[in-house]
Amino acid sequence: MKTVVVSPEATLELLSIDEMAWLGREARAGEEHELLRRCALAVLNCGIETDDAAALWCSHDDFDLQVVWHNKGLRFELVNPPACAFVDGAMIRGVRENLTSVVRDLIYSRRLIQESANLPVSVQIFRLLRNANAFLPGQEPHLVVCWGGHSISDEEYRYTKLVGYELGLRGLNICTGCGPGAMKGPMKGAAIAHVKQRLFSPLYLGLTEPGIIAAEAPNPIVSKLVILPDIEKRLEAFVRVAHGIVVFPGGVGTVEEILFLLGILMHPKNADLPLPLVLTGPESARDYFAVLDAFIRQTLGEEATRHYRIVLGDACEAARIVSRGIREVTEHRLEHDEAFHYHWRLHIDPEWQQHFDVTHESMAALNLDPAQPRHQLALNLRRLFSGIVTGNVKPEGVAMIAEKGPFEIRASKSFITPLENLLGTFVEQHRMVLPQRSYQPCYRLVVG
Amino acid sequence: MKTVVVSPEATLELLSIDEMAWLGREARAGEEHELLRRCALAVLNCGIETDDAAALWCSHDDFDLQVVWHNKGLRFELVNPPACAFVDGAMIRGVRENLTSVVRDLIYSRRLIQESANLPVSVQIFRLLRNANAFLPGQEPHLVVCWGGHSISDEEYRYTKLVGYELGLRGLNICTGCGPGAMKGPMKGAAIAHVKQRLFSPLYLGLTEPGIIAAEAPNPIVSKLVILPDIEKRLEAFVRVAHGIVVFPGGVGTVEEILFLLGILMHPKNADLPLPLVLTGPESARDYFAVLDAFIRQTLGEEATRHYRIVLGDACEAARIVSRGIREVTEHRLEHDEAFHYHWRLHIDPEWQQHFDVTHESMAALNLDPAQPRHQLALNLRRLFSGIVTGNVKPEGVAMIAEKGPFEIRASKSFITPLENLLGTFVEQHRMVLPQRSYQPCYRLVVG
Amino acid sequence: MKTVVVSPEATLELLSIDEMAWLGREARAGEEHELLRRCALAVLNCGIETDDAAALWCSHDDFDLQVVWHNKGLRFELVNPPACAFVDGAMIRGVRENLTSVVRDLIYSRRLIQESANLPVSVQIFRLLRNANAFLPGQEPHLVVCWGGHSISDEEYRYTKLVGYELGLRGLNICTGCGPGAMKGPMKGAAIAHVKQRLFSPLYLGLTEPGIIAAEAPNPIVSKLVILPDIEKRLEAFVRVAHGIVVFPGGVGTVEEILFLLGILMHPKNADLPLPLVLTGPESARDYFAVLDAFIRQTLGEEATRHYRIVLGDACEAARIVSRGIREVTEHRLEHDEAFHYHWRLHIDPEWQQHFDVTHESMAALNLDPAQPRHQLALNLRRLFSGIVTGNVKPEGVAMIAEKGPFEIRASKSFITPLENLLGTFVEQHRMVLPQRSYQPCYRLVVG
Amino acid sequence: MKTVVVSPEATLELLSIDEMAWLGREARAGEEHELLRRCALAVLNCGIETDDAAALWCSHDDFDLQVVWHNKGLRFELVNPPACAFVDGAMIRGVRENLTSVVRDLIYSRRLIQESANLPVSVQIFRLLRNANAFLPGQEPHLVVCWGGHSISDEEYRYTKLVGYELGLRGLNICTGCGPGAMKGPMKGAAIAHVKQRLFSPLYLGLTEPGIIAAEAPNPIVSKLVILPDIEKRLEAFVRVAHGIVVFPGGVGTVEEILFLLGILMHPKNADLPLPLVLTGPESARDYFAVLDAFIRQTLGEEATRHYRIVLGDACEAARIVSRGIREVTEHRLEHDEAFHYHWRLHIDPEWQQHFDVTHESMAALNLDPAQPRHQLALNLRRLFSGIVTGNVKPEGVAMIAEKGPFEIRASKSFITPLENLLGTFVEQHRMVLPQRSYQPCYRLVVG
Repeated sequence: MKTVVVSPEATLELLSIDEMAWLGREARAGEEHELLRRCALAVLNCGIETDDAAALWCSHDDFDLQVVWHNKGLRFELVNPPACAFVDGAMIRGVRENLTSVVRDLIYSRRLIQESANLPVSVQIFRLLRNANAFLPGQEPHLVVCWGGHSISDEEYRYTKLVGYELGLRGLNICTGCGPGAMKGPMKGAAIAHVKQRLFSPLYLGLTEPGIIAAEAPNPIVSKLVILPDIEKRLEAFVRVAHGIVVFPGGVGTVEEILFLLGILMHPKNADLPLPLVLTGPESARDYFAVLDAFIRQTLGEEATRHYRIVLGDACEAARIVSRGIREVTEHRLEHDEAFHYHWRLHIDPEWQQHFDVTHESMAALNLDPAQPRHQLALNLRRLFSGIVTGNVKPEGVAMIAEKGPFEIRASKSFITPLENLLGTFVEQHRMVLPQRSYQPCYRLVVG
Repeated sequence: MKTVVVSPEATLELLSIDEMAWLGREARAGEEHELLRRCALAVLNCGIETDDAAALWCSHDDFDLQVVWHNKGLRFELVNPPACAFVDGAMIRGVRENLTSVVRDLIYSRRLIQESANLPVSVQIFRLLRNANAFLPGQEPHLVVCWGGHSISDEEYRYTKLVGYELGLRGLNICTGCGPGAMKGPMKGAAIAHVKQRLFSPLYLGLTEPGIIAAEAPNPIVSKLVILPDIEKRLEAFVRVAHGIVVFPGGVGTVEEILFLLGILMHPKNADLPLPLVLTGPESARDYFAVLDAFIRQTLGEEATRHYRIVLGDACEAARIVSRGIREVTEHRLEHDEAFHYHWRLHIDPEWQQHFDVTHESMAALNLDPAQPRHQLALNLRRLFSGIVTGNVKPEGVAMIAEKGPFEIRASKSFITPLENLLGTFVEQHRMVLPQRSYQPCYRLVVG
Repeated sequence: MKTVVVSPEATLELLSIDEMAWLGREARAGEEHELLRRCALAVLNCGIETDDAAALWCSHDDFDLQVVWHNKGLRFELVNPPACAFVDGAMIRGVRENLTSVVRDLIYSRRLIQESANLPVSVQIFRLLRNANAFLPGQEPHLVVCWGGHSISDEEYRYTKLVGYELGLRGLNICTGCGPGAMKGPMKGAAIAHVKQRLFSPLYLGLTEPGIIAAEAPNPIVSKLVILPDIEKRLEAFVRVAHGIVVFPGGVGTVEEILFLLGILMHPKNADLPLPLVLTGPESARDYFAVLDAFIRQTLGEEATRHYRIVLGDACEAARIVSRGIREVTEHRLEHDEAFHYHWRLHIDPEWQQHFDVTHESMAALNLDPAQPRHQLALNLRRLFSGIVTGNVKPEGVAMIAEKGPFEIRASKSFITPLENLLGTFVEQHRMVLPQRSYQPCYRLVVG
Repeated sequence: MKTVVVSPEATLELLSIDEMAWLGREARAGEEHELLRRCALAVLNCGIETDDAAALWCSHDDFDLQVVWHNKGLRFELVNPPACAFVDGAMIRGVRENLTSVVRDLIYSRRLIQESANLPVSVQIFRLLRNANAFLPGQEPHLVVCWGGHSISDEEYRYTKLVGYELGLRGLNICTGCGPGAMKGPMKGAAIAHVKQRLFSPLYLGLTEPGIIAAEAPNPIVSKLVILPDIEKRLEAFVRVAHGIVVFPGGVGTVEEILFLLGILMHPKNADLPLPLVLTGPESARDYFAVLDAFIRQTLGEEATRHYRIVLGDACEAARIVSRGIREVTEHRLEHDEAFHYHWRLHIDPEWQQHFDVTHESMAALNLDPAQPRHQLALNLRRLFSGIVTGNVKPEGVAMIAEKGPFEIRASKSFITPLENLLGTFVEQHRMVLPQRSYQPCYRLVVG
């Protein structure tokens, strides 16, 4: 058994003795400890790409993390940590920062969450981000959120690096879900561009949540890692910190993100709030985007399309559209006395902020009636895709499907067809799970 | 009516909308507003030296401060602010930082205090200091607390600058009560030395409390200003952040500080905790220190003297003793795994942390029995001097004395004599109030 | 015709009016202007990879650069510059720095070279590097020189990135010839690692010379670019700034560099000077290194092999050896009061510093007699490879071969065989010129 | 005998071995060594104020400085250095920087001077300043030159601090002759203001020359010290780097500076070049400035007065005028494409740049004919005052007067009267030499 002791980074450096004691105690408690252990393991395994969390946990079942302290400060005791987190015996600084984020957000932030339980969700998220030191106050709009699949083709991955590079050349910073694939490429590209432009304090913001951190272990390029409590708060965090958004090819998770965003942008209360949104990929992704675009038009209507631009095989043009759009965002915020670092004014219905509990029943009960307002429909479609993500890769979802069979989705014929097209394309293009694994659908589409 | 709007500095830059709304509301409320107004005025009047708070308030009774906000952030609206806070229309940056501290510590920190009401006082103070960004984590022991009178002779003032200069040459930072006199001189001297040593991120920490801030307006050399809720917490903050302490000539307030410190250092639980303490002044202060030294010996006994050194007319030697002592502190902290930035291990009895409510009754009831343990006696003597400070300069104390006559202090002959000597010397040397005002004792010493 | 005006970066920011006038004049003069124009073009074309300088020049024959000035400072007027140097109309900062280096080193440094013409070559090189602001005074040994081909396989390129990454994780900086391939990969890898280790002021030093800059255009990751006057000074600059050296697979140019270095390390006056040297590549380069290793043993003898280690397919191990070796270098320099930033003590025979003028006659006259001292033999072998580089890719060399046929190389049988093996392997592995072009040997090996 | 070895600071950190060898050799040579020794001693004695250089040298006649080197770099070996340069055994960083400046400017810059001997004087000065790293390229106009006496009253000294403070509050930097009195006060005042405004990389530029450095030892607040080769180059350096000028009360040296400046500003070629010039002192200096103003009007005519403003007892107003004037300078430079850091365009007649060799003959031969152009007359008057400075305090001048009696100055009655008034006032106000010494005039005014 090998034990390594490391000190936390800045955000957990100055704790009072009662906070350290409480933190040590909480970190030992059963359920929390297991979650902490799993997320810490994911962070330490940063070099290894897998979406098979179970396999990861098996191969490191002797790993453990204890949070200890004395007057001098907090210490992390790691038992049998993965070797890839270290260079010649010293932990990589970026990994140590991410490990600190895990303890901070899983244990320490819990108090923060309890204290602000009665406050608006936007405030809760703001406080978590502030506590993570994720804001650059006073800095002009600069942050591009990039979404896309964690398991994409080599060509698509190279394209995400190119777009990141072009964004970086324009002085923009990157925020992603911080896993592999489309979440890593833009950061790597931007990192090279920032060096070429001599921008020496770049921000690579990673937003994740406990349920997916193991499957999408944060790459240590991520310079600020924040673990939001659940997937809804993570989505809201993305859209409130974004000054521009780029979506690369991905799977059902990516569609969930697009639907969430479109639902917000189409909400009447958000009319006229500028936010550049570009869907982009290499020339080879032409079919993918055609199918996706068709799906959006057929379900949310033509008016949905004025919120995004599709760019194929032109990383430079994609970056230019975002960059120009961010200048518009800047002017709009200045004109309306809005903060740059957090978009308070964006309206999100409380219903959207509630956690959607995925079960066979809730999935079957989804209202996909085309007659409802479009932004409302976007919300329900988003839930549908959230359920498919769960059924595809989350341990509890996989177990549910194994036990009770696929989710049954009911909708009118006019909905089932575009859905079938989209999901069929995803299966065909191996966008459901890692390519090396065969895919058994976790859903069944039923006209009715 | 002239209105000026300024933005707060870093510590109030990133607030959530609910915090801003709450802050704006609280800042408008009757009592808080008046306190805020008075402290803000004191901070803005930073160039003017007076200990006549009443006069200050009169001459600016049309001054007002409103805390307003929109999504972009907080703003201070100042009505008829004193001209000395501005240079060609722009507020001096240091003044703006101090103004931010006032709002932060009087209003915003209130929540912090409420939330931590059940925690040990040491934790409460730690959180207030952390919230004020007053710690330099990771930095080796470097902070010298300087105490002494705010109304001292020119020669004494020049000497405090010299000592500050010698401390600054040795790379040390300064913490004081941040008013004029002995609280300003060391900072000015150190500022010049830091320039000569090319140390470009110095710390000038000012610790104050609402009751005295008007009388001891923080000089804007102060680079971090913290307003602790009361005088006991301020004293405790001093001793927990200090790596070394220098005491210059002063009045009864300074004696209060020395007694507080000696009481702590003489406590059996603090035996062997190193903390260099130097009492120093120009050659002309020889008598002053002789009387003070005699008073300590005659009341707390010879063993009290091993905790301090008296240095006369040798700023360099004073600084050298502190500097060497701080190296000892460093080794001791390292050896015992103690933090550098806050002395958690220092034991302070809960009784000492309670606010001493000065009234004719509580003053008359002070236990000055020489038979009690010396550290306990130091506490009671400290309260005695706290009462005299109140009776001398605090508005409520001055009113109390005007109404009911001087406090009656009862003690045995062996105590009354040294007390008479010390206080008599202070009256003689004009150390009770500003020299230009005549002094009417607020106490009466009675043998019994 | 499109004209863009840009200001130079730091090293040409503070010129006196006579210097600016002189510089403007010199930059206009016939031969200098043409050289300046070509090198500037190469630098501005930084994104495009080609070793066909002639093609580059043709496609931009309307490009021009004028150096103008007024009291305020120098300006570069670019006529029809390549678009890839700009992002949305603004020149990439790294490109602008490299352009400044071109003007500085081709024109401004000429004076420096003239003034120091009578000084030792080591001093001349030092002054050029100092003038380019290339030293980090006071910093501990940190610089790894990476050599290798500019036209290598994808797998080899990826491996160079991996090694750069592992070096960067160990806090080391990179110096290369600053072209594509093995000169770019390590910098890209290190850039990512430096971000992960949060090292925000990295050094990517590029050393080049006018004759090859067009063929090996400096990538703008290069944070300091220095153009040495000729290939011998460039080689000497490499070995005097290196704290460790890594050699990747390459062609004849890479062999030239290895021979130069071995000649120096084997010189009796340099015995006991530590300098870690690792020859490394992916597993697929096993044959390549076997042939190279055999060639060295058969020509320079077994003792040559104690100066290097060959590592196959283990980037981490390669970096670890260099990192450990650099610690030895550090201790040695400290012990002998040697500077960290420049290796003054390294002995290089004046003969080695002379430019080798490649002609059919000089090539035929090369002394390859195995009886001479080994370090002397290394020198002559190095010249042989220098000649082959010239005949392969330099415009004047290509013209020479076209006119008079291949160089004739005479040596004993025991030399011709290893030479044939090595060069044959290079031809076979397409290491002579870019893979897409077929190769006609510019040499003929003759036993005699 | 006590020997201390220190390393030089940045500007002598990166020397080539030949430069170090040459420097070591030159620094040992007779005359240079003595000059070096004396200037080094002055710099090390920075805390002690005296204008009696002879006394200083006597009391430290066992002091010596050797410049030694090895491959690692240069070292200064100090034999019996004055204690005030050290704090607990380590040299004050600012003193070490100044010592480096002495070696750099007295020895190393000599080569620079020789190399540029045929260039315009403005270029020579530029190169010396650049070599001293004295420019802040790219920074907006910010530098206020302050002139005035080194031996002024306490009240005047405090006033210079106040003006420095007000300039510092406005973000301006200070340049002086870097001795005591009016050369130190503004720097100290500005240092405090810079701390209050949180400006953490201030510039305190000191310009001196070998002949006066001992008498006006540079205070270590000076953050860049440059020793110009002679008094004329020092004067020219002042006016070319100044963005604004403040003149405090002083003696004949100060008048020399004012006359030099007025001569330049009144030159027809400099018409319309803005440069704010404020003559200022406390209310008590009213007479002093009245006499000076009258002298200027009576000799150079009323038109001279449009170049300056006199401000009495209002430090804030003085700073405000300079600050506003600097904004005009900024606009003028931008409009005419002039550099901010050095005023190339300012015309100075070559005659003015020649050293005026003070002898009884040259003083007697001065042309003070009122009929000559006013700017020419200003030059000759300036020489007259230069002669009096020499006769008053420079060792060679004092010796000259002791041997041959006072200089004889001939001029028309209309000149002699204002001269008598001015010089008489200076004698009366003890502005000729340090107050404690009685003054014997070194001149005799003769009508004729």
